[in-house]
Amino acid sequence: MIIILKKGAPAESVRRLEDNLKAQGVSINHIEGVNQNIIGLVGDTSAIDIENILAQDCVENIRRVQEPYKKANRKFHPDDTVIPVKNTIIGNGSLQVIAGPCSVESEEQVITTAIAVKEAGATMLRGGAFKPRTSPYSFQGLGAEGIRLLIKARNETGLPIVTEIMDCADIDLFADVDVIQVGARNMQNFRLLKLLGRSDKPILLKRGLANTMEETLMSAEYIMAEGNMNVILCERGIRTFETMTRNTLDLSAVPLFKQKSHLPVCVDPSHATGIVSLIEPMSLAAVVAGADALEIEVHNDPKSALSDGGQQLTPVKFADIMKKIKDITAYLGRTIGK
Amino acid sequence: MIIILKKGAPAESVRRLEDNLKAQGVSINHIEGVNQNIIGLVGDTSAIDIENILAQDCVENIRRVQEPYKKANRKFHPDDTVIPVKNTIIGNGSLQVIAGPCSVESEEQVITTAIAVKEAGATMLRGGAFKPRTSPYSFQGLGAEGIRLLIKARNETGLPIVTEIMDCADIDLFADVDVIQVGARNMQNFRLLKLLGRSDKPILLKRGLANTMEETLMSAEYIMAEGNMNVILCERGIRTFETMTRNTLDLSAVPLFKQKSHLPVCVDPSHATGIVSLIEPMSLAAVVAGADALEIEVHNDPKSALSDGGQQLTPVKFADIMKKIKDITAYLGRTIGK
Amino acid sequence: MIIILKKGAPAESVRRLEDNLKAQGVSINHIEGVNQNIIGLVGDTSAIDIENILAQDCVENIRRVQEPYKKANRKFHPDDTVIPVKNTIIGNGSLQVIAGPCSVESEEQVITTAIAVKEAGATMLRGGAFKPRTSPYSFQGLGAEGIRLLIKARNETGLPIVTEIMDCADIDLFADVDVIQVGARNMQNFRLLKLLGRSDKPILLKRGLANTMEETLMSAEYIMAEGNMNVILCERGIRTFETMTRNTLDLSAVPLFKQKSHLPVCVDPSHATGIVSLIEPMSLAAVVAGADALEIEVHNDPKSALSDGGQQLTPVKFADIMKKIKDITAYLGRTIGK
Amino acid sequence: MIIILKKGAPAESVRRLEDNLKAQGVSINHIEGVNQNIIGLVGDTSAIDIENILAQDCVENIRRVQEPYKKANRKFHPDDTVIPVKNTIIGNGSLQVIAGPCSVESEEQVITTAIAVKEAGATMLRGGAFKPRTSPYSFQGLGAEGIRLLIKARNETGLPIVTEIMDCADIDLFADVDVIQVGARNMQNFRLLKLLGRSDKPILLKRGLANTMEETLMSAEYIMAEGNMNVILCERGIRTFETMTRNTLDLSAVPLFKQKSHLPVCVDPSHATGIVSLIEPMSLAAVVAGADALEIEVHNDPKSALSDGGQQLTPVKFADIMKKIKDITAYLGRTIGK
Repeated sequence: MIIILKKGAPAESVRRLEDNLKAQGVSINHIEGVNQNIIGLVGDTSAIDIENILAQDCVENIRRVQEPYKKANRKFHPDDTVIPVKNTIIGNGSLQVIAGPCSVESEEQVITTAIAVKEAGATMLRGGAFKPRTSPYSFQGLGAEGIRLLIKARNETGLPIVTEIMDCADIDLFADVDVIQVGARNMQNFRLLKLLGRSDKPILLKRGLANTMEETLMSAEYIMAEGNMNVILCERGIRTFETMTRNTLDLSAVPLFKQKSHLPVCVDPSHATGIVSLIEPMSLAAVVAGADALEIEVHNDPKSALSDGGQQLTPVKFADIMKKIKDITAYLGRTIGK
Repeated sequence: MIIILKKGAPAESVRRLEDNLKAQGVSINHIEGVNQNIIGLVGDTSAIDIENILAQDCVENIRRVQEPYKKANRKFHPDDTVIPVKNTIIGNGSLQVIAGPCSVESEEQVITTAIAVKEAGATMLRGGAFKPRTSPYSFQGLGAEGIRLLIKARNETGLPIVTEIMDCADIDLFADVDVIQVGARNMQNFRLLKLLGRSDKPILLKRGLANTMEETLMSAEYIMAEGNMNVILCERGIRTFETMTRNTLDLSAVPLFKQKSHLPVCVDPSHATGIVSLIEPMSLAAVVAGADALEIEVHNDPKSALSDGGQQLTPVKFADIMKKIKDITAYLGRTIGK
Repeated sequence: MIIILKKGAPAESVRRLEDNLKAQGVSINHIEGVNQNIIGLVGDTSAIDIENILAQDCVENIRRVQEPYKKANRKFHPDDTVIPVKNTIIGNGSLQVIAGPCSVESEEQVITTAIAVKEAGATMLRGGAFKPRTSPYSFQGLGAEGIRLLIKARNETGLPIVTEIMDCADIDLFADVDVIQVGARNMQNFRLLKLLGRSDKPILLKRGLANTMEETLMSAEYIMAEGNMNVILCERGIRTFETMTRNTLDLSAVPLFKQKSHLPVCVDPSHATGIVSLIEPMSLAAVVAGADALEIEVHNDPKSALSDGGQQLTPVKFADIMKKIKDITAYLGRTIGK
Repeated sequence: MIIILKKGAPAESVRRLEDNLKAQGVSINHIEGVNQNIIGLVGDTSAIDIENILAQDCVENIRRVQEPYKKANRKFHPDDTVIPVKNTIIGNGSLQVIAGPCSVESEEQVITTAIAVKEAGATMLRGGAFKPRTSPYSFQGLGAEGIRLLIKARNETGLPIVTEIMDCADIDLFADVDVIQVGARNMQNFRLLKLLGRSDKPILLKRGLANTMEETLMSAEYIMAEGNMNVILCERGIRTFETMTRNTLDLSAVPLFKQKSHLPVCVDPSHATGIVSLIEPMSLAAVVAGADALEIEVHNDPKSALSDGGQQLTPVKFADIMKKIKDITAYLGRTIGK
């Protein structure tokens, strides 16, 4: 950590700052500049509060040198994390394809869709039981009943199930879920992250619409700091000025997350683009960029879907895309599923 | 609502769409264009799911004509909402100044600060008991004990207290709080919004870092749809590409929120800018732009603050700014407090 | 075009607006809503000024139904545009790889690099003679001499040359250049676009850092409206809140540009990411997403480059990536070059 | 400047880097960290190319300590710059109000408007002769004739005139213009900036839609580096995800520009918001935040304007706002005009 002192900062207040820093266990280096002096801190600076230092009269600015995440940091954990999910694993070079409807709507809908996506080659089933909707007047999900139906669909197909938690109070309902998803709007629901950190279930952590990659890694760190190392990062589009797509899929996050962290990375082209015709090219591009998993919305009858109809694939279209995903995965020397 | 049909959409599928729409209670108008046909819907379209229509083969695009919020909409509620808080009110043309520390840290800290801000002219006391922090290694707030200390400070000074809720499970701890704050990261924690909608307490709803004004009004609508009309909107900066300020204060949101909605509007220059020297000009600008309240961070000793030290004012500096706020409020013919 | 009238708009002013619109050759349709009335315009609305209509007292808002670009619009030109460049073509399903240094620095540098990229499989040579630099104190390019050196490198290698124009006054210097590049900062330099529209050279038009896809297509329209149909769109990253990458590569622009327009699309992963280690995955992803061309920065000695050293590849690294680009291009059934 | 070395960087390559840096005239300081070593540079680092250093194998990252602008930097020029314009000055604590139509459309229009804004209290006349329009099919301005009409309006009213240059080739047409405006889209048209730097006319430099404050100051630096110190910075809104306003007015740029730089600052609420009803509150807020000038669009008949009708004020509404601007300026102890 580098502290840039104000021009002409009084020696006394600099000395007080340094004493304070030394008391926190770091050692101090000085660089005397022409216009400004600088203090370099050596040691474990993770406990040092940047805001607190910025509040000192003698300080002009601060530059961090090290990443603030540790458990999620590849520097300290060079090997890829591999996450077991039921009879399969995420993150060993294989590709997992998580497919299913935006919302669970009925037994028939979820089971029909589950059978169809399995047949097409999907390896996990997604479906929303609790739905975060911008409008209070939109369909809000079936709740506990939705999870019950997902489990039924798993029994029918053998596909592990992935579904989103929206509130700490619901945690018990997720006891028999295989992967718990944290939605983009909850990426900084720190209470929820801590709770999930005390679980041993795989957590699919979606990047927030306005969150940097570093903040996403810090949210993973929240989960990992509580003991749960099974975190999958998920890029699902960020909010930009562009209006033609729902969000802007930041595909460079895939290789960058994998360089900075040892955690597996998933891409959700459905939410990222919001446009059915973009799901195929963005899925293939994500695989080539190194994604460990894809999450794709498929509905047995998108025209009658209760949410996000416009971005859900039909089973026929999904099967067509899966064929191309399988081909390119094979070309890359990778496999679908374990 | 306007539905733009695809060029050459088959008459049969258009007819099916129209039947479906009529069944939802709206009436249909046709416009035959040169390249494309259009359907205009008349009636209550709030129940119509845009995504569902987008999923129809014959549909190219949709344009909304009416705002999706109703209870928060000034069109349907032309009079300003005035919210009683203890012995005062927010929103009748007066200005409320909510001041206090970022985090409640100790009894001495919060009471000293409360006395100081009251003396300087603040009308309410803020302080964080539960703190959303990007890093799991940062100070996370005193929790229930923090609320207890805020109540003590209220007893000491008579200032109503404003503090943030982070999770539904904590609601009982807020029974004796005067205004419950929903933080920017929780603006779309819909479960929490619904819960607060069933309370009768004033809710200070902060705009999310990546949320549009319309989404903010939709989150207010979540609270109001459950029956609680006491919502104060709060602009606290949005996330942009600019890095010199912490966030970008979108001050045009103040007059625009007040044109679109009847709810009172607060501005938080401390979080919006993250820079102590900008709090004075942005506070004065917010008052002139029509804000009903300001929320300003003040700490009895910012240099030793456990969070956000860099953006908290000293009591002396706050008193200096308050003098200018009082002057300009008087110039505008408004009053501080009731 | 749909005009939403204000609630209670006076009949007289609506009638005046309609007369005015009819005089512009469009016909009028009415939709009487519950809260608001709507006017639908049928006919050629491209000449109608939206801002002018918004200025009318009786108008609340306007919604466009049709895209504002015509010559660039695939609806009116369903077949892919194919652009001849010397002895090759851009846009027929093949992939062009444009490689070379950020700036032309010396004869030895540009010729050494040109030979190296040709050997590795590049099909065109890029190099900046005029350089847009944020700081006036940075290297500004060799200017006319830079173009002379590029031509020399073309003579040496046979590679067509691509270089950026920064000002209308320089146009004569580009007489012997094969593809003229318009940089992101000049995407809305409308005078320059018009000038290039009167040329018959292929124009590589880079999307601006804060420009939407629609605006990019409108800038292509500026060139095409003057008669030059040889426009290549180039996605090179947009500006977002993310700071880990230089810009955010919006790869969904590739398939979307190709759906909306008939023009070929190029991707520049070097400027989009600014990070050497991301060029390989983003290049491969761009090819899979359907890009017709890649533009990649390669320098014979990046460590001594006068600009953008941090994002330029060495010839060895470029050759390594080219091997993978060739493989995936072959896998896709496409070819490099014509 | 601080250089963060890669973990385990070979001593030899670090030594080479240091020799290279010393050769550029800076001195070197070492900080040995636990995980990483750091080099601190002391001396004039403005000539050092950051990208070049990033290209070295041993370098992980770089942190700048000093601002890259010098002539625009208040640190080196503590006194406010005051810019003479005809018989008045910008920047001495007074407020200039620049008003007039978006585009010059006809003699009658510009003279009628000029007389009206002068009567209302405006101190300068604006009007676009060359218009940057997104669509090639929109009105593009009267060009040279527009400037002739502006001069006529100046003769009639005595108001100094402000108008935008779009291309270097037009410079001679601006010989008799009082203030030359550089539009947002040209803020990084470096050739144009250099040309204007060799003029002695006041330059009104608009911040680009996606440009940071620092980049804006660097563009001012381009002008100043050529010798022209008469630069006025202008905040006119930045591009964000918000769609309710045309752009997002970043009002915190006003005090921040004035802290970082000695140059005067203008605010353009018309382009920033694009909404007539926001011009009053944002103008008053800008004055209170410390703006030295306002630029406001006024049209004698906005309903028939050829561009931006929706954001131009009528003379009556402008006169009404001017009254409030005068009042608040007087309240602040400032004056309108000199």
